[in-house]
Amino acid sequence: MLSGDAPLPVDDRGVAYGDGLFETVLVRDGRPCLWDYHMARLQAGCRRLGIPMPERDVLDRLPAQAGVGLLVLKLILTRGSGGRGYLPPEAPEPHLRWQCLPFTANERNWREGVRIRHCVLRLAIQPALAGLKHLNRLENVLARREWSDPGTAEGLLCDQGGRMVEATCMNVFWRRRGVLETPGLDRCGVAGTLRQALLERLAITEVEADPRILGEAEALWLGNSVQGVWPVIRLDDTEGHPLVEWQLTDIHREFQNVAQPLLGYPALPLTGTS
Amino acid sequence: MLSGDAPLPVDDRGVAYGDGLFETVLVRDGRPCLWDYHMARLQAGCRRLGIPMPERDVLDRLPAQAGVGLLVLKLILTRGSGGRGYLPPEAPEPHLRWQCLPFTANERNWREGVRIRHCVLRLAIQPALAGLKHLNRLENVLARREWSDPGTAEGLLCDQGGRMVEATCMNVFWRRRGVLETPGLDRCGVAGTLRQALLERLAITEVEADPRILGEAEALWLGNSVQGVWPVIRLDDTEGHPLVEWQLTDIHREFQNVAQPLLGYPALPLTGTS
Repeated sequence: MLSGDAPLPVDDRGVAYGDGLFETVLVRDGRPCLWDYHMARLQAGCRRLGIPMPERDVLDRLPAQAGVGLLVLKLILTRGSGGRGYLPPEAPEPHLRWQCLPFTANERNWREGVRIRHCVLRLAIQPALAGLKHLNRLENVLARREWSDPGTAEGLLCDQGGRMVEATCMNVFWRRRGVLETPGLDRCGVAGTLRQALLERLAITEVEADPRILGEAEALWLGNSVQGVWPVIRLDDTEGHPLVEWQLTDIHREFQNVAQPLLGYPALPLTGTS
Repeated sequence: MLSGDAPLPVDDRGVAYGDGLFETVLVRDGRPCLWDYHMARLQAGCRRLGIPMPERDVLDRLPAQAGVGLLVLKLILTRGSGGRGYLPPEAPEPHLRWQCLPFTANERNWREGVRIRHCVLRLAIQPALAGLKHLNRLENVLARREWSDPGTAEGLLCDQGGRMVEATCMNVFWRRRGVLETPGLDRCGVAGTLRQALLERLAITEVEADPRILGEAEALWLGNSVQGVWPVIRLDDTEGHPLVEWQLTDIHREFQNVAQPLLGYPALPLTGTS
């Protein structure tokens, strides 16, 4: 096995400009979850940024090297070194790095649901980068710094126009008047691989939505390809005061139970309510 | 001398998220230009992002280590390693890196002026990051990739609302109806140190401006703390077709000649026209 976590030189464009992409992949006993979705997003990012995609063979061999148990494989792909200032070299030689970290899913969040809050920070609108999991993530860092209360699991982000986009590291889904919805991500946000897999399996409509519509939602969930799906039981404002509360019902479980097997996680027992 | 360019571990937050700041400082025979301005901007960035500022003593000793001749000292300060995902550690241990690179000013651009073009990319509006020289610079990279013609020196960037902001790595200044103006940078863009020094020395008004007003400008300049100030003699559209042309006059030279000594560069001879 090639060492995957060699440090990056300071002239690497990933270091200098965040000129690169990353993926975090759930790996169970060497077998990656949603691998084709991760590779498709990485490929889309490479195309958009003009970074050569590594050989698929090289990438495909990585998860098996992760070892036994449940792990997260983090891939970082930068454009490599060189160029003149912001101008990339004509023939970039990308740097690929990877790390495997042990992971334990938060089963309590699956079962009992989570409390989340609105963030003050509003995401910038940049269609040229929207959807990509690129290395320019200062907005996520700033948003995540808005709270330290461990009882708040995530922060909900709107864009500069006040439309809901995502949580700091998860996508958001809700059901309203019987219809499953999620924000469209053509202006900003990260198009999660679990989100993509769910869009292909369920009738979920991509919408532009003011967060106030959540007051009419039967259910709200957050999800990503590592944690799975967390039902939201309380949404707080930016000060931590409750805005909306939900009781867990079978509506929550049925959505979760489409996502769980995609990540090799167990189904959740139904509540008997709806 | 401590080695300044040790590579960064892949778990460094600068690598992972662009969670950090940088400065590029012109250094002549070990003496930095506009040093207090660079340190003030770095300090402002540290405050805004919540990154501890390195000891000023440590930073102050770096330029002298650059050696003789004209060099650019590039400082990179990241939040360091650690934290849980986007959440930074409570007590970050920043990583400071620096490199010195030989530099030759483009005297021809000072003298003869440059051709620039409009970029297609529009900068995202993000007041939380506006003005800082942070490591999230994918927009600049994408904008700089829009042209390869070596006869085009820079690209002019507007924000998502169509207002002029800056060039890909320089600030922009113009004179219209006898008044010096530059775009305000409270929505996006990098507040250059040379720009700041010029704002303190000349009556320059920060404005919101549609780029079409450049058709009425007596002069247009680009400037940064490494290159100095380039007069613009032609502005092209996004396809490379000319929109506005300027003859170099003493209006151009007088502005340049306020900037040049701030960087230890020679004054330019007057043209005798105005």
